[in-house]
Parts: sequence; C-alpha cells; structure tokens
Amino acid sequence: MDRAELGRALVAAAYLEGDFLLSSGQRSRYYLDKYLFSTEPRLLAAIAEHLAPLVPAGTQRLAGVELGGVPLATALALQCGLPFVIVRKGQKDYGTARKIEGILRAGERVALVEDIWTTARQAIAAAEVLREAGAEVAAVLAVVDREQGGPEAIRQAGFEPRALFTRTDLGIRV
Amino acid sequence: MDRAELGRALVAAAYLEGDFLLSSGQRSRYYLDKYLFSTEPRLLAAIAEHLAPLVPAGTQRLAGVELGGVPLATALALQCGLPFVIVRKGQKDYGTARKIEGILRAGERVALVEDIWTTARQAIAAAEVLREAGAEVAAVLAVVDREQGGPEAIRQAGFEPRALFTRTDLGIRV
Repeated sequence: MDRAELGRALVAAAYLEGDFLLSSGQRSRYYLDKYLFSTEPRLLAAIAEHLAPLVPAGTQRLAGVELGGVPLATALALQCGLPFVIVRKGQKDYGTARKIEGILRAGERVALVEDIWTTARQAIAAAEVLREAGAEVAAVLAVVDREQGGPEAIRQAGFEPRALFTRTDLGIRV
Repeated sequence: MDRAELGRALVAAAYLEGDFLLSSGQRSRYYLDKYLFSTEPRLLAAIAEHLAPLVPAGTQRLAGVELGGVPLATALALQCGLPFVIVRKGQKDYGTARKIEGILRAGERVALVEDIWTTARQAIAAAEVLREAGAEVAAVLAVVDREQGGPEAIRQAGFEPRALFTRTDLGIRV
C-alpha cells in the first residue's frame, strides 16, 4: 500500500463526523478514531512501514503513550526491530509502580510515537517524562497532525515533530 | 526460537524476586514483569508465533485487555492477520466513550489474549464484557499461568483457558 492509498484507507476506516469533545478539551465536528486504524492488521502494518523511515538514524528505543500509542509503538517496534517503552498517564499501585513500563537506559536515543496531534499537549508531556528519565528524545512521530498547533508546540518544547499525514494530506476540511 | 528457548528467554527477561503486591490483591515472592517481555521485539515476535496455534479455528477477532494485553494482542493480530479490540478497564470521557475500542460485531468468534494469570479475575471480567457485547468468546489465552487457580476459574465462568506456559514449565518454584 503506497502512502496515498494508506491515507485513503485511513480516512475510510477512522473518520467520523458529529460533535466531539477531544482530549485537548476542544470541540470538533470531526473525529479520527485511532482505534479504528490501529486495530486492523493490514492498516497497522502499512502505517508501521510508512512510519519507519521517519524514525531518526541512531534511534535505540521507541516509546508509545498509554493507551492509543501502544498498538502503534508495538507495530513499529516489530517493523524496526527496536525495543519500546510505554509511558503511563497515571501510576498503578500494585506490582512494580512506575511511570514508564519496559526498560529505559539513561542517555538512550528514543523516538516517541503518537497517534493524532491536536494541540500535542499529551505528546509533549510524554516526551518530557522520557527526557526527565534521562532519554534523548530524537523525534516525536505521529500518524496524523490535525493542524491545530501541534508541531509548533512540540518545537517550542524543544522536540522535533514528524507526522506521517496532516489533515490537509487526508483531504479533511474543517 | 523454539518453545523451550522462549521459556528460558522469558524468565531471563522478566522474572523478578522480592515482595510484590499483585493486581489480584495477593502478595508474592516473585513477579513476572510482562512489560519486560512484551516490549522486546524478538521476544514479542516469538511469543506471537507460539500463541498463534492456540487461537481456536474459526476465530474472527482477537481481544486484549488494557494495558498489559495490548502489545500481545497487537503482535498476535499482525501474526495471524486478524483484527482486534481493546477492552478498557475504565471508561474515558472524551471523543467517543466506550468500554471496547475497535470494532466488534455481534456473534463474532473472539479469542482474548492475556499476559499472566494469577486468579484470572481480570481475564474473566474482560471475557464477560466481550460476551455481553455479543461476542462468542472462543478461548482465553495467556502467556503464563502462575498456577493459582486461573484456568479453573476461567472454566467455571464458561470459557476455555489456553496458556502457553505454566509456572512449572518455566521452572519457577514458590
């Protein structure tokens, strides 16, 4: 599946119209349900294949944010042969309590994989958790940038944004 | 990697000794950190390969429980070419609020994939969510059964348990 075909398949699978409250707190007349593209193996495999070239050279580990980023980080890890960590939104209180699941070594070059950016507030928070844990965040990747200030905010926080598709690429009008 | 090699690699990667409070509420002198095997692509790919034959014939969809089951369900979905759903533990309050993420059609034959069973209380709760949503739960799979009553409880709840390894298989003594 080439990039244009993937973009069309993604919209066909995951684009919904209505009145939605986004995690950013904003309302929107459209919603891209990441689970509708990340739970279909054919689409997920194609996304991982097209995200792989966006992983910066020298990246040692991937990271995905609970919950939506986990299928993407898993598929990209299998595609690239790189291990990954999961950044939790809260902390669990049993077993081993931590903010990052999996192994992360100080100084490691990490690429964070996100599903969809609106303001990218969640992406930035997760990248900061990784940086505080001693990682060098080489880039913040996303499948879709909704073009609501995400890349600018990521750059301002000191990280490099790399999105596979923008809303415009997908032919979605607001 | 054959099954015996995978068992040894799994213990080498994920077996911890100490004093742990498990999600079942029980204390244990050992803990298998599922994230230490599910975030390593070589181990995860081998687990998916060995879990695939445990997926019952005619299965139409896989399911994984938030959060630990998601890398496993993702890898098994890519391995088998089957779509999957994620069973949430709580409900989110933005976007589209639901208990199951992804598509699930009434009457579908679903295999639930779990990481580790202690009492398997969480596995049973998730299987019941799937059944209430109209799915036929063909089997409940796990990577490791800690041999603390999980399979018996799953059978009693009307589901079929299939674990890749038991604690005994892995050479762990209590």
